[in-house]
Amino acid sequence: MGGDNAPASVIDGADIAKAQAPHIEFIFVGDESRVRPLLVQTRHLQNAEILHTDVAVAAGDTASHAVRRGRDSSMWVAIAQVADKKADAVVSAGNTGALMAMSKLQLRTMPGVTRPAIAGFFPTEQKRMCMLDLGANLECDEDNLVQFALMGQAFYHSLVGKENPSVALLNVGSEEQKGHEYLRLAAQELSDKQLGVNYIGFVEGSDLVKGGVDIVVTDGFSGNIALKTAEGVAGLFATLLRRCFKASLPAKLGYLLARGALKNFRTKMDPRRYNGAVFLGLNGIAVKSHGGTDAVGFANAIDVAMNLVGHGFIPDVSSAIEKADRMRAKRKNVNE
Amino acid sequence: MGGDNAPASVIDGADIAKAQAPHIEFIFVGDESRVRPLLVQTRHLQNAEILHTDVAVAAGDTASHAVRRGRDSSMWVAIAQVADKKADAVVSAGNTGALMAMSKLQLRTMPGVTRPAIAGFFPTEQKRMCMLDLGANLECDEDNLVQFALMGQAFYHSLVGKENPSVALLNVGSEEQKGHEYLRLAAQELSDKQLGVNYIGFVEGSDLVKGGVDIVVTDGFSGNIALKTAEGVAGLFATLLRRCFKASLPAKLGYLLARGALKNFRTKMDPRRYNGAVFLGLNGIAVKSHGGTDAVGFANAIDVAMNLVGHGFIPDVSSAIEKADRMRAKRKNVNE
Repeated sequence: MGGDNAPASVIDGADIAKAQAPHIEFIFVGDESRVRPLLVQTRHLQNAEILHTDVAVAAGDTASHAVRRGRDSSMWVAIAQVADKKADAVVSAGNTGALMAMSKLQLRTMPGVTRPAIAGFFPTEQKRMCMLDLGANLECDEDNLVQFALMGQAFYHSLVGKENPSVALLNVGSEEQKGHEYLRLAAQELSDKQLGVNYIGFVEGSDLVKGGVDIVVTDGFSGNIALKTAEGVAGLFATLLRRCFKASLPAKLGYLLARGALKNFRTKMDPRRYNGAVFLGLNGIAVKSHGGTDAVGFANAIDVAMNLVGHGFIPDVSSAIEKADRMRAKRKNVNE
Repeated sequence: MGGDNAPASVIDGADIAKAQAPHIEFIFVGDESRVRPLLVQTRHLQNAEILHTDVAVAAGDTASHAVRRGRDSSMWVAIAQVADKKADAVVSAGNTGALMAMSKLQLRTMPGVTRPAIAGFFPTEQKRMCMLDLGANLECDEDNLVQFALMGQAFYHSLVGKENPSVALLNVGSEEQKGHEYLRLAAQELSDKQLGVNYIGFVEGSDLVKGGVDIVVTDGFSGNIALKTAEGVAGLFATLLRRCFKASLPAKLGYLLARGALKNFRTKMDPRRYNGAVFLGLNGIAVKSHGGTDAVGFANAIDVAMNLVGHGFIPDVSSAIEKADRMRAKRKNVNE
């Protein structure tokens, strides 16, 4: 029931996903009187299961309010399906703060993980890049950032298949002496060869889209600012470009001629292709779709969830965290 | 001597500025053997003054190193001209950290200002928007942010001419309960009607380019990340678009037809038009040009400096800060 176009975009997105991967079974949690008529109109989901509840978390609810009052809400019940092993993953376009808070309560944080984080993909010049944290933790220390790097690697590996993907820390400059103290400490720890992280150093905001690194680690405040700034600028460019192709008759003709090439460009930058942010560090898979996306975008978020289920993502995260913990204990022993 | 294309882009930029505003007198500080031959080739600066020094701050120098070793450097000597009232403003495309450190030492922070900040302009859908701090202060508290808002208003007023321009705080959401504690405290203070700031609330990264606000206030870490991310995404769009118009013969023809309309678009988004970040809160005008800009961009940075000199910017900042101080003292008396 979450997101600007719910439940239609959720159901239509599931229909697209089902067409591509017929083995997925969906449980729709929400108001049956609104969900059923939409399911009947789908191609592949006429008989899908519905768990009825007419309570829904609102976009403006605070996380604490949602958690206190929302135990009957569609969001809570959907996450409960994962906690109760009745579902492999939950996908929602609803209130991010509430989804994180409820997921933490029901799925619980993995042993050893101090703070779960939100990870998502960015388009770059060459390939896609993953960034975390995108907003779960406004203030972070060096230990959080090191854990984010490890969880990000497991996440990237599950979705892209690359072994030991590269990691960078987001900073205001690439020189070693720059930035917050905790960034320098995290850099030091990530550079430790024994940790085995393919750490490449600091990157700046302007490097994010260059594609020189697989995973960019940052605190949730900066990550959120960077993500939304990038979305805003990309949106502005698209708007101005559209306007410019309508500005004159020659421009309109030019658009018709260049349309094929422009379509590739548009596809590459289409934010729907990058939809689906994942909560890392929980004992279960929870994917957050952008609230403003459509069916195609929502289908992509489902695809992200599917890939994580299929690629042993949870055990991968857990073993990376354990390894780092062992190393830290060892270092502590040496120092004592 | 600073920047990627120095001294050529600096001298050519000054030549453009001189053509537009013949009353400007330039003093070029740097290596005479490199500067003189370039000046000779200009249209308007053949007889311009040169202060010779063959020491230059390097791009990679730390600010502390530059300050300790660089008293003979072109950067130090150029700032000294402003400190000694021989010049009204200094413009440099060199090392930002060194320029800030040297400017603070020589021009001194204004009475009442706790931290100088760097302000610059962003393109938006409608008009230009000013953001600060862009990187001088990685960590800020509520008092710093309130001062940034006041200094930003004086800056915006000097350059754009608008009375009481609107101010917002950059945050991870627009709801009042979001974000860091110091952001909520700053919001509270800025909302105080007696302060007289046209404060409109929190904005997110995605709002930056929408043009709904004149001045966005943030800490230097987030501001730097937002600025550079925006630059990066804009650059990626431009690159991909250029590539796409070369992808096929129809696309090339389409480009030729749409060229006029695309030119407007390109002009609007041209980063050179927004070049020239200003150090606010000092007893003198220091403008930082982007290191990678060309003559047109450098001329714009000179234009920014000119406008600030012409519009009583320094006394405006100083009276805004005094007013806020008086209010704070009054509030303190009431509370006691």
